[in-house]
Amino acid sequence: MSLAQKILKGDIKAAARLIRDIDDGSESAIGELKKLFVQTGRAHIVGITGPPGVGKSTLMDKIIEALRAENKTVGVIAVDPSSPFSGGAFLGDRIRMQRHSLDEGVFIHSLATRGNLGGISRSTYDVIKVMDAMGRDVILVETVGVGQDEVDIGNTVDTAIVVLAPGLGDDIQAIKAGILEIGDIFVINKCDHEGSDTLEQELKIMLAMGDNRADHWHPPIYQTEALSGKGIEQLMAGIQLHYDMLHQKGLYQRRERELARFEFLEILRSSVMKRLQQQLSQNGELDRIEETLVKREKDPYTLVEEIMQKIMPR
Amino acid sequence: MSLAQKILKGDIKAAARLIRDIDDGSESAIGELKKLFVQTGRAHIVGITGPPGVGKSTLMDKIIEALRAENKTVGVIAVDPSSPFSGGAFLGDRIRMQRHSLDEGVFIHSLATRGNLGGISRSTYDVIKVMDAMGRDVILVETVGVGQDEVDIGNTVDTAIVVLAPGLGDDIQAIKAGILEIGDIFVINKCDHEGSDTLEQELKIMLAMGDNRADHWHPPIYQTEALSGKGIEQLMAGIQLHYDMLHQKGLYQRRERELARFEFLEILRSSVMKRLQQQLSQNGELDRIEETLVKREKDPYTLVEEIMQKIMPR
Repeated sequence: MSLAQKILKGDIKAAARLIRDIDDGSESAIGELKKLFVQTGRAHIVGITGPPGVGKSTLMDKIIEALRAENKTVGVIAVDPSSPFSGGAFLGDRIRMQRHSLDEGVFIHSLATRGNLGGISRSTYDVIKVMDAMGRDVILVETVGVGQDEVDIGNTVDTAIVVLAPGLGDDIQAIKAGILEIGDIFVINKCDHEGSDTLEQELKIMLAMGDNRADHWHPPIYQTEALSGKGIEQLMAGIQLHYDMLHQKGLYQRRERELARFEFLEILRSSVMKRLQQQLSQNGELDRIEETLVKREKDPYTLVEEIMQKIMPR
Repeated sequence: MSLAQKILKGDIKAAARLIRDIDDGSESAIGELKKLFVQTGRAHIVGITGPPGVGKSTLMDKIIEALRAENKTVGVIAVDPSSPFSGGAFLGDRIRMQRHSLDEGVFIHSLATRGNLGGISRSTYDVIKVMDAMGRDVILVETVGVGQDEVDIGNTVDTAIVVLAPGLGDDIQAIKAGILEIGDIFVINKCDHEGSDTLEQELKIMLAMGDNRADHWHPPIYQTEALSGKGIEQLMAGIQLHYDMLHQKGLYQRRERELARFEFLEILRSSVMKRLQQQLSQNGELDRIEETLVKREKDPYTLVEEIMQKIMPR
């Protein structure tokens, strides 16, 4: 039986093996992914993002617990390098989170170690596909920051949860750009801390100002205290509500379309660049280009045009 | 006189015009950038990065002030969407920072509004080139987060300053991955806050553990209180020290080489993808691909191989 066949039967070891192959950039992984693709598109993909220190991982922990209580199987992909799910946090947190790793219904994979350009997103898509094909009901993707990664995640998931917490300095400023648009659900975690009501007010105002979403969805705001479990039940209902809305309004199909196009272009980009780098390295051309640039004999735009002329003549 | 010629004479309006053209993706901008390229490579490019809320912008403000006191001209590129330099912060901060915009010796540009994939970095390189060609002595590039952007910045600047502050929750965890390797100088800002000495100790231990830099540079740690100006003098000396070290050890040339290669590949990537997207959109092929994928008639890897066969046959 091929890896793909085993994975389609829900085999965890086979899935872990394929994901390792994907991480290693192995050629055979592509063959297996091809076989899996037709069986994907069933999982509910939920992104969880926000700046460091807001308690994303503790929240994830509680969301996993709640999903398991509903008998749903879960896939977890931690792209956040500081996540306890990727082994990057305090030992105590790590142990607390990793109790789930004893549960066959929770499949955890960390992509945190891949620091190469563009590597994070490409692997993420592939690993989502594997977990989807395994039959996981919900796939949680944890990312950090307020940069490009978040915009990517907005393109990748069905439901994007943005987690904030009071008292993080410029928090409300930091989320202004990009992150407000991608959030389908907002969570103010550590709601027992001072300032959570103010943060909710500010957030409400900002959401109201930018309220021109094509899907007419009004992102709800939930206050949680993940450590104690407060507010988790409401949040879970909100996640379900967003999922139902996507299906009722036919938006799930539209998201799927956007994701398909985005993903295709990502794979195309990485394939083309891999091929180009191989070609340029083979005959030492890249070294010569570097030399020419450092000596400032030619500018990079002209050099790119020359290369393009050779490889993709109009 | 062409835009490029004006810029080489230090014309601020011409530089602003070209940068606007770059932002708009105008074809003519490339022509001007080509002419500027041979005149670049003279500026000291300094990256300032760190999570939101550590006071990066206030620190930038003081660094600009110190550079101006030394009669150095400054270029500022704010990639951080929450930066007051990009108009994203509290009004008070914004006004305080923007006093520099009345000084012809400080040229400020914000790239914060560009949210498109890969756009941030490409534009950043080009804008750095413009400011370099203008003859700016120091170019400050402000970014936020702990994600991929930071790794890119490490590839882009001569001196990378990582700013932290005590009391940001998981701060020491968040910086573990990637950011430790790229930091040439560490700043603990808000050093009057509780916990700054502990943070310094933790940071020292982590830096000592990872101490295998090829350049044998030991990243110094400075404690600052940017609001009052405390520690800025020492930090400025540290920035100069790192610059001197780069030149004395011949490392400046190596960095230049790495940057040249990286930048060339970035321009190549964006040119190739632009061409591909044009070709695929023209005859409706991208729409057909999307349709095929959503119906799961074919997987994206097979589709990419088919396209590659057409456009870049081996």
